Amino acid sequence: MNPQHNQDPFFLALTMGDPAGVGPEIIAHTWPLFFDRERFPRFCPVVYGCGGVMARAAKMYHPDLTVETLPADTPLSAEGYARRFGPKVMACREVCAPDSALAVPGTVDRRGGEAAFDALNAAIDAALAGRAAAIVTAPLNKESLNLAGHHFPGHTEILAHRCGVDDFAMMLYLGPDENLAGRDGLSVVHVTLHTAMRNVFEQITPKSVEEKIFLIRDFMRIMKHGADPAIGVCALNCHNGENGLFGREEIDLIAPAVAAARAKGVNVSGPFPSDTLFLAAKEGAYDSIVAMIHDQGHIAVKLLGMHKAVNITLGLPIIRTSVAHGTAFDKVGKGTAKITSLLEAVRAALLLADARRAAPHKK
Amino acid sequence: MNPQHNQDPFFLALTMGDPAGVGPEIIAHTWPLFFDRERFPRFCPVVYGCGGVMARAAKMYHPDLTVETLPADTPLSAEGYARRFGPKVMACREVCAPDSALAVPGTVDRRGGEAAFDALNAAIDAALAGRAAAIVTAPLNKESLNLAGHHFPGHTEILAHRCGVDDFAMMLYLGPDENLAGRDGLSVVHVTLHTAMRNVFEQITPKSVEEKIFLIRDFMRIMKHGADPAIGVCALNCHNGENGLFGREEIDLIAPAVAAARAKGVNVSGPFPSDTLFLAAKEGAYDSIVAMIHDQGHIAVKLLGMHKAVNITLGLPIIRTSVAHGTAFDKVGKGTAKITSLLEAVRAALLLADARRAAPHKK
Repeated sequence: MNPQHNQDPFFLALTMGDPAGVGPEIIAHTWPLFFDRERFPRFCPVVYGCGGVMARAAKMYHPDLTVETLPADTPLSAEGYARRFGPKVMACREVCAPDSALAVPGTVDRRGGEAAFDALNAAIDAALAGRAAAIVTAPLNKESLNLAGHHFPGHTEILAHRCGVDDFAMMLYLGPDENLAGRDGLSVVHVTLHTAMRNVFEQITPKSVEEKIFLIRDFMRIMKHGADPAIGVCALNCHNGENGLFGREEIDLIAPAVAAARAKGVNVSGPFPSDTLFLAAKEGAYDSIVAMIHDQGHIAVKLLGMHKAVNITLGLPIIRTSVAHGTAFDKVGKGTAKITSLLEAVRAALLLADARRAAPHKK
Repeated sequence: MNPQHNQDPFFLALTMGDPAGVGPEIIAHTWPLFFDRERFPRFCPVVYGCGGVMARAAKMYHPDLTVETLPADTPLSAEGYARRFGPKVMACREVCAPDSALAVPGTVDRRGGEAAFDALNAAIDAALAGRAAAIVTAPLNKESLNLAGHHFPGHTEILAHRCGVDDFAMMLYLGPDENLAGRDGLSVVHVTLHTAMRNVFEQITPKSVEEKIFLIRDFMRIMKHGADPAIGVCALNCHNGENGLFGREEIDLIAPAVAAARAKGVNVSGPFPSDTLFLAAKEGAYDSIVAMIHDQGHIAVKLLGMHKAVNITLGLPIIRTSVAHGTAFDKVGKGTAKITSLLEAVRAALLLADARRAAPHKK
């Protein structure tokens, strides 16, 4: 780490997610661990959500944890934070409508969708304005979001829309783990994402594939402390298209993108059959995978380490990481929702924030 | 097991596969284990291939293992087998052209494709004529097969063609394993298989999905000693089509098939997002999965247990199991090819043969 860094602690905006899902409770459950200096460097976590919802969640796990709210944009210094907040006092920006606490836990509810949307937007405002070094999001429910009149397939598309970027991607990241032979974890980026299978054909282009190769290269360099990752690119069709017999996307679209990126010095190869490529990555041959469709990457990452997977949006002017699981309505209020993914999402956000502070010119 | 069974040992036809691949060496490596009575009930393994190729492979692992050849259709009784063959004498039906031994190891070669094709056809002849209770196949190389003028995507389609069946499917099976919470292993059948992604839409129909549900139910009943398996059905589109937002195949085609099979008493549910379904199966919630496309099933099975996965063709009038790996040209002659998949394929073939002997009226 560059010793000349500004050593002020980072402010992290943690969105509450859908109040009817497990978001509030995993944040509340985890809260005291954010102040464990053996686990994390000093940082200032701030929940963006509804104080009433967070207080209800806090009671489940930590009877002595209180929630103090403050308005969306009240200035807050690191010193001011340290005086008011800590492992027993949660900081919560009150950014949701008052009725968000009425969303019925474990159900699709318009008010839950609205609250998740409001929390995310306030966090984006804070990150764009520099009041937060990164956003870590808890899950929202897409049906609830739609009921609230916000027609986005998920967080990723809202973030891209608000930041005005077209060249973005959803990445899943697994940190170092005993299931993976590689030492720096495994990252998987998706060329197409939330779309019908019938529409992926028009979205896979040499340009879109090459963009994802560069996005994941830049991300994984951070996780590898500057070293270049080995990147493998998936085929779209089974058996890598079997030399054109099972489709020509590999020959016409994907291989040219790989060749172009290699010509620019990227350590990338493929396309390869997706089933053998993920196995090779598990065995340590690749640090990063470029998947063509949502389920290629998600099947693999969930089997390799669902409970600690992190979802990271690449290509934004701001940093955003997220738990990789959903609202898990069936687990709400039961105390069984796992917090490993949230811990990993915070860890990744802090690493990314540190890298950006060291090299602020890079996106 | 039914005590009234005919207790004659089963003859198993083991195809050599492509002589340039790892097929001959994994068979030769494994050969003495076939006579280990703690591992297997008594059966009579017979290689279908080329004696010269098998002798070359035998030398790699067992200098004292000789290969005795016999013509494709010489009658052979269990007593005759026991007198001539055993852990130190391999039985090999000489069914390939003499030049098959000239196929250069580790390379695509027309002669390798021809030999693999000939070995498979001779084994199919034996199974159809009742001289073999089951076929266990070693891998062939599709490019070599095509060079030899046989334009099939793989074993499965050749078997279906030779047996004259339209309603067949490729299934992957993982036996009980510490990676799986379920006690009877996990089976995954594919609705579409070796085809371009652009073509899967026309191949997924309520009828094709329902057929696969019944095929895997019947198979898994055997592995569960008569009990009904819990079957989960994958979506085609990500997020299960998100209520039609990301495609209507789930609503229009897959859900009706699941409903129809349930109405006939099958313990089946879905469609579910493929990424969460495979994770649920790993955690023990399902015995069997119906996948919509090749890579859904293959990504999951390879990550869960590539080295012991077995490929089984369902819907044939004969029994066929196979290793799930390919010719692995990069491993030929190095002694590193694993034999666990072959051992599992033989185990499954013997179980299926026993079930068919007990209930010969069922396919």
